[in-house]
Amino acid sequence: MPTSTSNKPSVIITMGDPAGIGAEVTVKALASREISGLANFLVIGDLSVIEKAGKRSGVRCGFDILDLANVSRKDLRCGRSRPEYGRAAIEYLDTALEILKKGRADALVTGPVNKASINLFLHDTLYPKPYTLFEGHTEYLAARTRTRHVAMIFVSQDLKITLVTRHIALKDVPGAITSDAIYRTIELTRASLKYFFGIRHPKICVSGLNPHAGEGGRFGDEEKRVILPAVRRAALKFGGIYGPAVPDVVFYDALNKKYDAVVAIYHDQGLIPFKMLHFKDGVNLTVGLPFIRTSPDHGTAFDIAGKGIADPSSMKEAIRLACRLAAKRDRCSR
Amino acid sequence: MPTSTSNKPSVIITMGDPAGIGAEVTVKALASREISGLANFLVIGDLSVIEKAGKRSGVRCGFDILDLANVSRKDLRCGRSRPEYGRAAIEYLDTALEILKKGRADALVTGPVNKASINLFLHDTLYPKPYTLFEGHTEYLAARTRTRHVAMIFVSQDLKITLVTRHIALKDVPGAITSDAIYRTIELTRASLKYFFGIRHPKICVSGLNPHAGEGGRFGDEEKRVILPAVRRAALKFGGIYGPAVPDVVFYDALNKKYDAVVAIYHDQGLIPFKMLHFKDGVNLTVGLPFIRTSPDHGTAFDIAGKGIADPSSMKEAIRLACRLAAKRDRCSR
Repeated sequence: MPTSTSNKPSVIITMGDPAGIGAEVTVKALASREISGLANFLVIGDLSVIEKAGKRSGVRCGFDILDLANVSRKDLRCGRSRPEYGRAAIEYLDTALEILKKGRADALVTGPVNKASINLFLHDTLYPKPYTLFEGHTEYLAARTRTRHVAMIFVSQDLKITLVTRHIALKDVPGAITSDAIYRTIELTRASLKYFFGIRHPKICVSGLNPHAGEGGRFGDEEKRVILPAVRRAALKFGGIYGPAVPDVVFYDALNKKYDAVVAIYHDQGLIPFKMLHFKDGVNLTVGLPFIRTSPDHGTAFDIAGKGIADPSSMKEAIRLACRLAAKRDRCSR
Repeated sequence: MPTSTSNKPSVIITMGDPAGIGAEVTVKALASREISGLANFLVIGDLSVIEKAGKRSGVRCGFDILDLANVSRKDLRCGRSRPEYGRAAIEYLDTALEILKKGRADALVTGPVNKASINLFLHDTLYPKPYTLFEGHTEYLAARTRTRHVAMIFVSQDLKITLVTRHIALKDVPGAITSDAIYRTIELTRASLKYFFGIRHPKICVSGLNPHAGEGGRFGDEEKRVILPAVRRAALKFGGIYGPAVPDVVFYDALNKKYDAVVAIYHDQGLIPFKMLHFKDGVNLTVGLPFIRTSPDHGTAFDIAGKGIADPSSMKEAIRLACRLAAKRDRCSR
């Protein structure tokens, strides 16, 4: 990767699962003029897959590629879940982590991976030793960088939403939330609003869990028992922390600029409103890691992979946000 | 109430809790020209409260009022919860039900009531006999008309959403849903799309319960165990029924016209996206009752009651919808 002789930040993009739309949205995003000049980009993936995606989409690949050559082009079957694709996706990530650890890049944008493929690979490799299930990029990056507390912020023009719990069954949510986890999420949300988005006095509202926020305990007491202590603790320490709010009011309020961000208690509470408005241009930002990491707000889209019809909007926004935050950090540290 | 000598439908509006914003939004809504000519209106409430609201809002009360005179004007304290206000709210409703039962009105629009006031009244009246808690208009009207299956549709220009469960703690939702309840909700939703909204072949999508609709059972099996059987049964009987869908995708799809309505499994799943977009102009339509009933999508708003600043948009839309549906039913039955 070219070291920063220019003032541009250095941004790594991992291609994601070779059988998904990662390569396609990457080449399409980097081909657009508004994006291509924002940073020195290094795409980590498989040259043959990237070239094929470029040809199919009718765009030139004028960016640096670190070719790990672990998928042969003729064996590639788009839309399939296979352990070798999982291995490739993990190797792109591990390579990116090495470069980031050496301080030779400012930010990471991750293309979508297929959890099933990665878990097939991990199972094959580590069996019969017990292996840790791959839960997702965020958990993997946190584990590899020994980061205890991470949070994902879903970022769009008009909404910023952080989740306290993610991929767990709805029935397990009430038992899974703790005041401490909510407090950490508030803390990380606040830090990123300040340092990444330049909001000096962020206003953050924490949603309740139950309809009408439990209506004074009539249906559910988690607001009082679990959420309120976290809100009080954070409000005392930082100020500008509100809640627990009525869930079907707080997102309307946030959209109308009453708050800078909402802390949502469970996955769909935050993502139903976010994705309804930003299905195509939403971005994930992971905060707490020792580097900037963004990703598009969609998966591998196996149903349309290899067809050349994937929409790069979310990848573009993910790259744009990574570049913006990396440039800002650069300025601060110099 | 004037019997229909004109072709206009007859619509009853109950004033709701005297201490809330019901009277105010009613007089404001009926004062607007676009609304006042739509039907023969009869407002059931307290004349003194209505006149005061009219004076405060600077509008004339040019509509019929059935004065139950059960709240004295000088005792009225806006924003307070009191058993006598609860009694008044219940008496307005009971009077409306008698008129509707006699077939002398086509539709009912209910102003917001305060559950606490009504329950204080019921407790005082029936104590020490065990009394049934007032759960809300919908449950009360269903019980009084001996209707077994009712559903509430939240109606706006671009979204129609029905709820399977309503005011229960989130932790109780997974145990409370049954295939039968979901099937009945689909059935009522479909009937109202056909008969009220004139959609000949409605497309209805049922949401899943868990993030990613459980991702094939990885986090939650209610989709397969409870929701899918209801969807299959309804799809076989009616056609045009889809799901269980990924919750953070289905509302985006509905907003983009892929479906005519979404059946949401729990309160906030449906109301977070609905209220984010239609906080002010959303309307509730209750289906399954022997008459048309709509209501504004807000409560008594005790914090602003008596100040003359309440927004009548949702009440206007509730009246407009009631008039439109009543006119349609009228045309059908003649």
